[in-house]
Amino acid sequence: MLTTELEKDLKWPSSIVVSEVGPRDGLQNEKTMFTVEQKISLIERSVEAGAKIIEIGSFVSPKAIPQMADTDEVARRMKRVDGVEYRVLVTNLRGLERAEAAGIKKAKLTVSASRAHSLSNLNRTPEEVLRGFAECAEYAATHGITLSGAISTAFGCSMEGKVPIEQVITAINGFREIGVKELSLSDTTGMAHPQQVYAYSARVKEQFPDITWNLHFHNTRGMGLANVMAGMMAGIGRYDACFAGLGGCPFAPGASGNIATEDLIHMCHEMGIDTGYDLDKMISIGKYVQEVLGKDTSSFVLKAGKSSDIVKVQNK
Amino acid sequence: MLTTELEKDLKWPSSIVVSEVGPRDGLQNEKTMFTVEQKISLIERSVEAGAKIIEIGSFVSPKAIPQMADTDEVARRMKRVDGVEYRVLVTNLRGLERAEAAGIKKAKLTVSASRAHSLSNLNRTPEEVLRGFAECAEYAATHGITLSGAISTAFGCSMEGKVPIEQVITAINGFREIGVKELSLSDTTGMAHPQQVYAYSARVKEQFPDITWNLHFHNTRGMGLANVMAGMMAGIGRYDACFAGLGGCPFAPGASGNIATEDLIHMCHEMGIDTGYDLDKMISIGKYVQEVLGKDTSSFVLKAGKSSDIVKVQNK
Repeated sequence: MLTTELEKDLKWPSSIVVSEVGPRDGLQNEKTMFTVEQKISLIERSVEAGAKIIEIGSFVSPKAIPQMADTDEVARRMKRVDGVEYRVLVTNLRGLERAEAAGIKKAKLTVSASRAHSLSNLNRTPEEVLRGFAECAEYAATHGITLSGAISTAFGCSMEGKVPIEQVITAINGFREIGVKELSLSDTTGMAHPQQVYAYSARVKEQFPDITWNLHFHNTRGMGLANVMAGMMAGIGRYDACFAGLGGCPFAPGASGNIATEDLIHMCHEMGIDTGYDLDKMISIGKYVQEVLGKDTSSFVLKAGKSSDIVKVQNK
Repeated sequence: MLTTELEKDLKWPSSIVVSEVGPRDGLQNEKTMFTVEQKISLIERSVEAGAKIIEIGSFVSPKAIPQMADTDEVARRMKRVDGVEYRVLVTNLRGLERAEAAGIKKAKLTVSASRAHSLSNLNRTPEEVLRGFAECAEYAATHGITLSGAISTAFGCSMEGKVPIEQVITAINGFREIGVKELSLSDTTGMAHPQQVYAYSARVKEQFPDITWNLHFHNTRGMGLANVMAGMMAGIGRYDACFAGLGGCPFAPGASGNIATEDLIHMCHEMGIDTGYDLDKMISIGKYVQEVLGKDTSSFVLKAGKSSDIVKVQNK
């Protein structure tokens, strides 16, 4: 058996879609407040580097998340490129109205698969949160906005432990009832492991073949890229990532954030999997983020460089 | 198709062997000099935590690697447990004689698959290094010492770039000629990626079924655990790891070290793969290492805790 035959055996995809969620999920976790100009620069540069889906911010309570208070202005002033999906996170009808006013055509709703997490964050059960989305769906339909859904703590919850797939399916059904066709399973707490990712991904993909599936991983316990591999083997083609690997876990201070966009596309390109990104441009964006923050982040490639970087070493 | 059926599809192993290489590959990269007592404590505690193979040090030039100068004393004074393999790294006959004098029955020889790396480190080609091992094999055979071999830069070299499998096979054949039956492919520079690991592992396993195979990964570019997954899928059952994730890459200052033992066994146990280790005991060893060093290391689980740690959060 030849190496090339073996490589085929694992059925890697030839390409995946990487959504850049840094402007929202990354920046909202930083104490440093990025200016509107800096945010616009990050968005425009990410799109120029190859992002086809970018989460530019959220329309939520500015008291709860002050880092996202200026998303309206960001959305109005940023340059838009045809064919790129500029997405925002919203939590209710008010957020959706702000999205509409800012000319945003794609909004993401999120619900927690964990009851304890939902109660702790929103003081409402997942079922109550999902019921609240009905008016959003109606508004979206009449205003030309497409909705996607994210299911947070889809694998584990720091308060409840491992989240059974039945709770995930309850959330999926809630989203399906309001007509959402694109869903993300989010490992909010960095507890997912490859076997679980494979099992959950394969299950939802088979049970709900009409849904476009996305996975969202944190690298909290070092399994971020291993989980992407497991997702790819289960046939999932879309992954969130965040420039410089920003985005901590509130339950594990000091822990790593989202998988870094540059780490994910570096691995993919090394494996011959196309992402449509220019890795060097994403590395330079990551370095800019670190400069603004004045600190290192949990990105690996920003520290170590690409595998293809050749080092000249003097003979000893 | 049920979830349980899907899980079986990926053919995870039910157990793997994790060799603790921290006392050698970890400590040799630290400026902090551990005392003989501290090293013995780390070795004995690791064995008590479940290590069945432990690399206790190396018999090399104390000028080149002063951190390993006291391996003789460590070997003589440590408590030995029946059935545990206490292994040392040696580079030549002199090292093997020191191993014999210290009552060590297992020694690892290492050669680089990369010509440039070999020349830079030893001023000799891989072929010259391998020829030099013949006298070691003779000595080992007459003194009841078992040899294993490690092939460094087996996937990539910071100077040469990607290392073709033919160069790895040259090294394998060199080791086979002197009767070595246990070999490790080492990703010295952290350049391996899952597709390559799967391909190289499957290839060597098929071409050399009489060899016991081991893989050694660094987490330099975040792919450490993804590479273990790829190795497991190719049927490799043995992996090196290092407490607290010590062991940097000399070509990428600040980059992550070996995969951390606690991260690897955490992932395995989450996936239902037995390692024979007590994770809590390994975590406590990792914390002790960080205490002695007075710094955080690249371990994830030491920062974030286990996935199964339940956090109590106050309602907002």
